[in-house]
Formats: sequence, C-alpha cells, structure tokens
Amino acid sequence: MAGNSFGQLFKITTFGESHGPAIGVVIDGVPPKLPLSEADIQKDLDRRRPGQSKITTQRQEADKAEILSGVFEGKTTGAPLAILIRNTDQRSKDYENIKDVFRPGHADFSYIAKYGIRDYRGGGRSSGRETACRVAAGAVAKKILGRHGVDIIVYTLAVGEIFAKKIDYKTIEKNAVRTADSKAAQLMIASIEKARKNGDSLGSILQCVVKNCPPGLGDPCFDKLNARLAQALMSIATVKGIEFGDGFGASQLKGSVNNDRFVLKGKKISTATNHSGGIMGGISTGEDITIRMALKPPSSISKLQKTLNEKKQEVEVQVKGRHDPCLAPRVVPVAEAMIALTLIDCLMIQKATQL
Amino acid sequence: MAGNSFGQLFKITTFGESHGPAIGVVIDGVPPKLPLSEADIQKDLDRRRPGQSKITTQRQEADKAEILSGVFEGKTTGAPLAILIRNTDQRSKDYENIKDVFRPGHADFSYIAKYGIRDYRGGGRSSGRETACRVAAGAVAKKILGRHGVDIIVYTLAVGEIFAKKIDYKTIEKNAVRTADSKAAQLMIASIEKARKNGDSLGSILQCVVKNCPPGLGDPCFDKLNARLAQALMSIATVKGIEFGDGFGASQLKGSVNNDRFVLKGKKISTATNHSGGIMGGISTGEDITIRMALKPPSSISKLQKTLNEKKQEVEVQVKGRHDPCLAPRVVPVAEAMIALTLIDCLMIQKATQL
Amino acid sequence: MAGNSFGQLFKITTFGESHGPAIGVVIDGVPPKLPLSEADIQKDLDRRRPGQSKITTQRQEADKAEILSGVFEGKTTGAPLAILIRNTDQRSKDYENIKDVFRPGHADFSYIAKYGIRDYRGGGRSSGRETACRVAAGAVAKKILGRHGVDIIVYTLAVGEIFAKKIDYKTIEKNAVRTADSKAAQLMIASIEKARKNGDSLGSILQCVVKNCPPGLGDPCFDKLNARLAQALMSIATVKGIEFGDGFGASQLKGSVNNDRFVLKGKKISTATNHSGGIMGGISTGEDITIRMALKPPSSISKLQKTLNEKKQEVEVQVKGRHDPCLAPRVVPVAEAMIALTLIDCLMIQKATQL
Amino acid sequence: MAGNSFGQLFKITTFGESHGPAIGVVIDGVPPKLPLSEADIQKDLDRRRPGQSKITTQRQEADKAEILSGVFEGKTTGAPLAILIRNTDQRSKDYENIKDVFRPGHADFSYIAKYGIRDYRGGGRSSGRETACRVAAGAVAKKILGRHGVDIIVYTLAVGEIFAKKIDYKTIEKNAVRTADSKAAQLMIASIEKARKNGDSLGSILQCVVKNCPPGLGDPCFDKLNARLAQALMSIATVKGIEFGDGFGASQLKGSVNNDRFVLKGKKISTATNHSGGIMGGISTGEDITIRMALKPPSSISKLQKTLNEKKQEVEVQVKGRHDPCLAPRVVPVAEAMIALTLIDCLMIQKATQL
Repeated sequence: MAGNSFGQLFKITTFGESHGPAIGVVIDGVPPKLPLSEADIQKDLDRRRPGQSKITTQRQEADKAEILSGVFEGKTTGAPLAILIRNTDQRSKDYENIKDVFRPGHADFSYIAKYGIRDYRGGGRSSGRETACRVAAGAVAKKILGRHGVDIIVYTLAVGEIFAKKIDYKTIEKNAVRTADSKAAQLMIASIEKARKNGDSLGSILQCVVKNCPPGLGDPCFDKLNARLAQALMSIATVKGIEFGDGFGASQLKGSVNNDRFVLKGKKISTATNHSGGIMGGISTGEDITIRMALKPPSSISKLQKTLNEKKQEVEVQVKGRHDPCLAPRVVPVAEAMIALTLIDCLMIQKATQL
Repeated sequence: MAGNSFGQLFKITTFGESHGPAIGVVIDGVPPKLPLSEADIQKDLDRRRPGQSKITTQRQEADKAEILSGVFEGKTTGAPLAILIRNTDQRSKDYENIKDVFRPGHADFSYIAKYGIRDYRGGGRSSGRETACRVAAGAVAKKILGRHGVDIIVYTLAVGEIFAKKIDYKTIEKNAVRTADSKAAQLMIASIEKARKNGDSLGSILQCVVKNCPPGLGDPCFDKLNARLAQALMSIATVKGIEFGDGFGASQLKGSVNNDRFVLKGKKISTATNHSGGIMGGISTGEDITIRMALKPPSSISKLQKTLNEKKQEVEVQVKGRHDPCLAPRVVPVAEAMIALTLIDCLMIQKATQL
Repeated sequence: MAGNSFGQLFKITTFGESHGPAIGVVIDGVPPKLPLSEADIQKDLDRRRPGQSKITTQRQEADKAEILSGVFEGKTTGAPLAILIRNTDQRSKDYENIKDVFRPGHADFSYIAKYGIRDYRGGGRSSGRETACRVAAGAVAKKILGRHGVDIIVYTLAVGEIFAKKIDYKTIEKNAVRTADSKAAQLMIASIEKARKNGDSLGSILQCVVKNCPPGLGDPCFDKLNARLAQALMSIATVKGIEFGDGFGASQLKGSVNNDRFVLKGKKISTATNHSGGIMGGISTGEDITIRMALKPPSSISKLQKTLNEKKQEVEVQVKGRHDPCLAPRVVPVAEAMIALTLIDCLMIQKATQL
Repeated sequence: MAGNSFGQLFKITTFGESHGPAIGVVIDGVPPKLPLSEADIQKDLDRRRPGQSKITTQRQEADKAEILSGVFEGKTTGAPLAILIRNTDQRSKDYENIKDVFRPGHADFSYIAKYGIRDYRGGGRSSGRETACRVAAGAVAKKILGRHGVDIIVYTLAVGEIFAKKIDYKTIEKNAVRTADSKAAQLMIASIEKARKNGDSLGSILQCVVKNCPPGLGDPCFDKLNARLAQALMSIATVKGIEFGDGFGASQLKGSVNNDRFVLKGKKISTATNHSGGIMGGISTGEDITIRMALKPPSSISKLQKTLNEKKQEVEVQVKGRHDPCLAPRVVPVAEAMIALTLIDCLMIQKATQL
C-alpha cells in the first residue's frame, strides 16, 4: 500500500534512489517458459538512458540490467524476476548546496511534509531515475504482449508550441526527440537546445497509440482500462494531464457527433470514427487506443530562483547537476512501459475468468 | 481484482444494475465511533438523484439509502457499512427494442466482447446508476474529512462552449447546472434545453478544488496522489480527460515560469503560484488541489443513429428511455465522492506509518 | 484491508450483524455465463441454518437467499453477485442483561479493545451468523469447481472424545451431527444432548478431503495452497488448530517414513503414500488434499460463570439466547465453503498465467 | 497475487533462488526515521545461517545483508528498503544427478505441474534459502515492535519424541537446538546426530509466545489475527500443523472449562486462564499469544529412496548436497520473523483507523 508496487497479477515492485548503490525491480507473476535475456531488457533501457543524445542530461549511466532471479537456462520459471541496475555516475556533491533547500517545483517540501526526512541527493526516491525500473519491467511485458500482436507506439507530439504534423511512425526512433515528424524534429531539437542555453526548460506532449489491443480488456467499474491507464501514466512524475480519444475536445462536441457508430470492416465489427479512443464503458473495443499526455517543463533549471530552505529562510538556488531540458524523448519508453504493464495485467485478469 | 472495489484501507465495493432489484455499496474500514445516520448519506444522494431538475433525466428514483450494517445506536462500529438503494422507477420495456443493438458510444459492444453476455436493460452494470453507490460511500468519507477541515468543491466550469467566468462558490448549489457563475448558469441551462429539444446532448467540463488538504498525502511512486485521483475520476464513465494544476497548459510553459517557488504566508510554508495544483512529486503540499475533468456528451440521444446489432446487421436506433442531455450537474457529487474516497484512503495510509 | 474480504480474483466481501436488519455478501469476479439461481445457494444455506435439528441452536432463521445483482436471465453476467439474507428471528432482548459484560471466551472484550464500541446483540459482527454469507458465496464457488470435477468432502471426525472410525462418506448427510460413521453418530448425538442438558458445550474435530483437485494450485512462497487454506479455515471463529496430511503426527516421524515417493498409478504420476496431504512445496499434487480442524467448545453456555463487566466489576453471567452445544455439524458447510473459495481463487490465478 | 509478497501496509516481496546469483527482499511501507543498519539485520540472519552448528547443514553461506535502498544517513526514509544477500557457496553440481527426478517429499513434481519448468538446483525457488529474506525483513519489523514493548519468543518444544519440559527462555540461544530446556537440549542434539548418521531426518515442534502484544490487533472476519498468523507460519514450507492456545486439546474440552473468564490483575483486565492463547474473536486480548507448529522431517535424506523421474521411469535417488537433519533450530528465527511481520502489519492497520 506504500505505493511502490503496480499491477495485480503481473505485479512490479521498484526500489532504489538516484544516488544510492542501485535501483531495481521485482516482477511477480511472470508467466513461465518465456524466453528472456538481459538483452531483451537492455534494448529499452538504452532508449531511456541518460546521456543518449545532446538534448538529454549528460549524466552518464550505463543502466546495465542484471537479472538476479526468475530465469533459468534462458527461460522464465514463474518465480519472481528481479532486475538490478547499479548506479555508477553519481556526483552527490552537486547536491550539497541544496540539501536543506526546497527547490521550486520539486518534491523536496512534500517529502519532508510526508516523511520528516529525505535523501536530498538527486531527489532520492523522487528522482526520475526510478523510471528505469519501470522500463525494465515494461520490456518483459512488451515481449509477452508482442506475442499477442499488441503494438504500443509512443511519440513526442509537441515540444512547447511546436507540434508534429505529418505523422510517420517510422521516423520516431530516428530523431533524438522521438517525434513522428522528421521536419518538426529539427525545430523541436533547436528549441530544446535554446532552452538549455537559457538555463530553462520546456514542456511537451506525448501521443500514445495501442494497435491490436484485444477487445474485452479493463474491468468495470473502478478498474476501467482508461482509469488504470490514467493512474499508470499519471504516476510518471512529470505528467500533468491525460486525455483518451478526443479528451477535452469531447467536452465541446454534441453527442450526435461524438458517438462512434458501429460498422463492419470486412467481417470485423469496428467503429466508423474513434472519438472514444478505443475504450467504451472502460473496456477496450479493439480499435486503436489513443492517449495524449501533457508533460510539464522539468523543474531542474540552472536559472537563479528564489525559494525557502528548511529553516523557512528565503534563499536563492541554482539547480546544478546535469538535467534534461525537455523530458519528452526520455519519457517515451517510460510511457510505453506503463501502458504495457497495464495491458498485460488486464490481459491476465481477463484470462483468469475464462474457466 | 474484478474492478468493483476502490480503496485500500477505506475500501468500497459496489454492486447492482440499473434495472435489477437494488444497487448498493459495502464500505470496509470505516473508523469506529463516527456518528452516522441515513440522513448524512441522503443529502448527497439527493444531489445526484435523477429527476431533480428540468435539465436532468426525468426518471424518478427516490434513491433512498438504507443502512444494513455497521452502525449501532447512531455510531459506526468498525464493522462493514452496507448501504442499500432499491430501484423503483424501472421501465425495462424501454430497452426491449435495443436488446441486441450495439448503441453508438455505449458499452454494449465492449461488454459482449468481454463477458459474452450482458444485461441490456438501461445499460445494466455499465449504467451511470452505479455512481449513486459512490456518492453514498463518499458522503461517509466527506463526513470524516470534514472533521479534519478538508473541503471539496466541484462545479461545472463549462457546458459545451459556455464557460463560467466570475467564480463564486456560493452560487454552485443555487442553480440547476451547478456552476459557480450565476450568469453563465442561465446560458448553460438554455443550451442544455436546446440540445434536448434537438434530441442531442452536450459535453462539459468540471472544475474541482480541494481546500485544506493536509500536506503529505499520496504515496510514491505508483500511488501518487494525482495518479490515484486520476484513476478515481477517470473511473466515472463519462470522463475523457483530466488535468492537475495547469495540466495541458503546462506543456506550453517554460520551467522558469511553471516552477512554484516556496514563500512564507504568515508562518506557513506556501507557494507563490500554484501551477502544480497542490501536488508535487505525487504528494500534497497543503496548497489548493486543482483538477479539471472533461465529460463527453452523453451517448444516449433520441436522434436517429445508424449502427450494428449482434447479428452484424446494420440497424437504425433511437435511444428511448429518459436520459440526461448534459452530465455535468449530476456528476458534480460523484466527482466529490471519488475525491473524498481517495483522500480518506491516503489519510489513513499516512496515519498507519506514524507508529 | 479491514478484513471483511477474502480472495484475490474470486473476491467475496461480507457484511451484517447477527441482530441487524440483514447480512449479505458481494462476490466480485464471478466468471460470466454460469447458470445460477437462488436454489443453488439455498441448498447449502439450509445445511448451515440454525434450527435444523435438535442438536443445533433453536433460533429459527429461514436464511433465505435473495440475489440482488450479477445474474440476468438465469446466468451470471460477470458483474458483482450480491446476495442478501434478511434476519428474521431476533430476540435482542436476550442480550440486554449482558450488554456491558465481557462474556468468557467471547469477543466482547477484544472488540472493545479494538473499536471502543460494540454491538452486543448476539455478538454483532463477531457472531457465527456471518458464516452464512460464506456458505452462500461458497455455493457459487462449488458449482464452478464441480464443473472441473473437484469434490470437497467435510465431516465430523470427533465430538469430544468420540471419534468416527468406520468412514463412509455416504453417511454424512444422513445424521444430524454430519459424521461419516453411522454408529459413532448416535454416540456423538447423545453426548451433545447431555452437554446441553448440563448447560455446557463440547469441542470437536472436522476432517476435510478434497478429491480431484487439479495439480498446480497454490502460489509460492506466501500464498502456498496450505497457507491460504489455513487462513481461510482459521478465520472461522471456532477453529483453534489445523493440520495438513499427517500434521502434528509428522513431527514424530522420520524423513524416510514421511516422504511420499512417486509411483505410477496407471499412467498417472501419483504417490505411494499421502503423508503430505496432497500438497508439496505449497502446490497441489493432484492427490487427495487432507485437512483436520480442531473446533473449540462453543463459548455460549447456560452454566453460571464469573467474569468482569465494562466497569471492571466482577459479575456472574448466564448466557441466554439459543445456542449450539457443539459446532461441528453447522461448521461442516462453512468449512466446505472456505475450501471452495480458496480453491476457485487459486484456480483462477493459475489460469491467468497461461497466456 | 503470485504469492511472493506478504503484508498489506508493511509489505515484503522476496525474490531469488537457492543457486542463483542472489536472493533478496524489498520492504514497502517501512515507517520513516527508524535508525537502521545492516548490523540490525545481520544479527538474525546469523541465527538462521547454514553451517552455524554441527546439527545444521554444513553449506557455508555468509548470508551477508547489503541494504540497497531506503536508508539514508542511518535512518529509514519511508522509501522501499531493499536488502540483497549474495549466494556464495553453491555446488550446483550436487544437483546434476537429480535434475529430472521427482525427489520424494519435495516440490519437484508440483512445480512441474504448475509451471512446466523448474530450476532444479537446490530446489530453486522452493528452497528454504528463501526464508533468509523473511528473517531479514522480520528483523526490521522486530525492531519497531520492540519499541512498542512486544517480545516474540520461539523455541524448539520437541525433536521427534523428545519434549522440552522445564521451560526457561534464557536457555534458548545457549544450545544448538534452540530449545528452552537445557537437559532436553542434549538429548535432542544426540538424537539429531544419530538421524544424520543413519541418513535420515527428524520432525519437530516449535512453541511461540508473544508477550505484551497490544490488545486490539487483527481484523474480523477473514483477517483475524490467528488466521493471518496461520497463513504466515504455514507458508514456511516445512510446517504441517498449527495450534493456537489449547489447539487440538480444546476439541476435547467442555465450554465450562475452556472459557477464559475475565479477572482483574492489578488494574488490568486479564483472564484467569489462557486456553484461547491470547486471541478472542480473532483479535488480540493482551494476554500471551501462544502458538505451536509441527515441522515435518526434512525431505532431503541421504538414504536411498525409490521414486519416478520426468519420463515416468522408476529410479533410485540419494539426495546429495548438505542438508539439515532437523529443521527446528533454523526455523526458530524464521517463525519469529513471520510473527513479527504479521504483527507489525496488524499494528499499522489498527493505527490507520484511529483518525
């Protein structure tokens, strides 16, 4: 209940702080006999890794996954799968000057309010570094979902005011900002570099599309697929808004427009439009699941800011360390992971009732 | 895991279909010795009740709460609190003509995809009627939270394109649409009546504000307060988008603008701005929690629509029954309830660690 | 977490007090399309019902099950199945004289220690009456398990010092004490009647056998099948001890004797002996699961007893009301239910991983 | 749900196999600001460690605890506490000859029945080695409980037919068999050595006493304190029976004898007898909690045994490796841990409702 587990049947538990010896994840409920190696996991970790391009933080972490348990002779055994990632490039000294400062926009104050104590080095547990564990676990989930044909696509839709327009999924992994429009990519990258030079940061929007999701996933009433995905994605620290299908746009529509009527596409029951984003009544319909997420600009900026310290004194703070000026490119694999972890769990729950 | 429970320590389980004999809720984990009567619950049920004004459905349900257990001599005992609400005004005949039709925008198809069977009368379990149970449980949670000074305010921010502008909380319960702007109220009501006459429906937006939430609520990493609230609110069938603080607006801001710096207000540590909406790092800061929710236009409209039936034949459907042309006014107490249920649970979890 | 739910995927939540308006149970996770009627449930309720024979309490409760939700046109829909049982024969007056007395052996004192308040009428929530809800839910589980060939047999092995010796399952439902030995039955009944006449009560032992349990049920490490069954059965208020296979007898054996070696029976891998009681490493082997449970003598006796009241004064108490002099015959269907609820849950969990 | 987690608020998740690189445990829900070091944990690990005396297995494992997260500057932070224990003394070769053999009494067959695959080296996940993680987590729980005055005592009551008689708790840690009777200790040790020489093993009984448990712990109906303890203790692979208070003895008593009447001891409400073992109605009364557990003789014996292999062929097997001839001395700290983990969880749940 203390919040570090996610999932009911495919349940992950993460641990570790940004500047401790290691972070890691335990997955309980992995189906047995799945071929799995560290390479399966490393692939996605490398996509989230710091220092991967000039527009991410320059902290250098190998983020090397070590499987500690749950795999025997190349296959999962049904036992808990534990994955360890050692922290290597820590400069805890960077944080000495802010050890008693409530950095604007950060969790420093709220952690003190909650726990009365905090590991101030790099945000400790509140660091985005924890998401590497999600990505590692998500890689396992994605491998299983892939066998069921499910395909999860996430890309950067906007960096600040620059939006991707000509969407081509093939482009996503070919540009540093992970957008689906190669032209917009250049503008986005330039804009991020400019923000960094100014000691500032930029907000962004991610677009997610799930293709070939089996119909029937999600559980009314409280565990609706969209409700569970909302928790999953909103648990990524930087996410401030989330929309399914038309989202806020639907609030401006009439029912006669917004209703997706059912039609036959070949022999398959489908919908003529997809305002609902592939989920009706909280259950997947088999159409594309479409989600948009708003990411705030990262709180760590090198510009001088006024704030308070733990003694309630006003102080000026300049957040040192090596930070991301825009989070979108590194959150892409994290969002994929959280969607995958939600879907695999719903799939297993659905399977359970088919006695 | 089948989705009809919410909460970890203050745990509710709802049951019942729109046209069955009754709906109800069991609350497990109610603190003992709380004075409680059916009147405490009825007050909120009356605010969600159908037939309460000319702009809601004309279905007449008394929605009379009966406490079956958990209260003895006017006080809670710590035993499960069961609340039963009998269904009274059912016209199941209204649904005979759509028993094998997949109504556009409804859960008919996805329920068949999931369960292979469905109670077609009034949507069965997928009916919004289930939310009466949430409101009943929420009334109990709100009573406890009230004793801790927490105040939850929800109002209609927009009906279609008409937005409330001059916000005055005192106005909310004085107009049928539950908006906080008495002038906008008239325009909204007129617009809803027009939609109804046209056999159509309207989308809307709700605004939520939580005042005096204690700092320290919410649990990193997956049970962040915003993540849990997102699941809670997104589990209301009609919600398509949700924002905390600046939400999607934050994606257009720079970090230097979006960061809320800490300042002293009297002796209390507060923030100069509240872009973050009262939650940082997934934990409440003590500032106002601000949330916006997009509601889709109701799917039940009397306009003629084309769709498919279970035999994959194209049919025309006119959704009879008595329906809401705009959901905002009746979802207001449901949103309050879901926020209350989330907060009470977080409060109890927080309490548990203070050994 | 407040303890009134059992199960993870086939999850029941019970509510209600002995002398309130009703008791009931909500089952979340019932597989859809199962034919189900109130008669399926009533059958088992009648076996637990008070007043069923001269050796049980003479309280007369019809224990009439009413299905409130989750069944449509004779089949389960996948929605929560709610079952209500009205209380009818309440003589709350019987309890006036003990309202502030801590009855020896009862939960009166511990409830006050926990909650600071209690419903003293008939034990309130601590009453054995709550187990009717388990029996109702268990009937649903048994129906599903029956389709998988699983057969759960429970009988009275001993009443005080009288043990069943010649075991014949066909006898069980033919005698009031539900033992498997028709001769012992007469002795047991006589012994119970004598205890009642003396204003006293008798302890007893139940024997449980599960036939045709599929191998592979139960989840290491903490959710071992025997661990889950132990919680399930020990949650019946009267149970003080539980054994699997040879139980305490195994503590007196050598490994070379206790080890069950594997042998072929036809083409099926089986074991030559069954000291382990059908569970190895916490997982079912497919052999008979064998369990013994010790039931204490009921605490409600009409003999005069000394004790304290809430003011810490010494008082004499004579427990009026109508009570069971020996619990075995009425706990038989309760034990069956708890075993069924555990097995169905394990079966669904096992199913979930077979993606 | 896959069974490798225990606890609701103080929740542990264990991972690791006997012959993998490491085993470990993540504790989520540790109260913040608790002083904690590896030494606190090591103390108990050393009591469970293999090779600690001549009557345990001679496998040499340092069982060195490494804290990976959740502690900062010597205090817990409220973040997950991860503890890693590297495996060092593995002789996997010992298991080559039994890789496809179903060892009598072991989990080999049931794991294959469940998962279709197994790590045969030393039992893999089914190895008792996993309990080191429980002991590590239990040490943290015990430290917190100690601050509330709770004292958990476990000792060997019997080895085979030799029972401790003159109980003196001070003796327990002074003899290799961890019994509370120094004379019986010598007989027990001799008997264990004899069994080992014969290539055989011995069953045993543990006695547990919890002193100063606060009244009010445990949650009716399914999470009764005894029910939760039963699951906790029965999840230790070797446990075949469990009794609370008089246990099976109560089945032979009359109510007038078995009922514990309430009396004043000084100003404290207490009971004249303690047949119930400190738990009434599933809730602690404040009296000593008394539990007895039957341990089967270890399945790993060097005597030649007949059994089957995976090809259904009859084979002879001699279990090599280095094994315990009697489990009691090493299970003592494991039982303490499981009791501590249950009590801390109940204490936190109880705390949560006191809003």
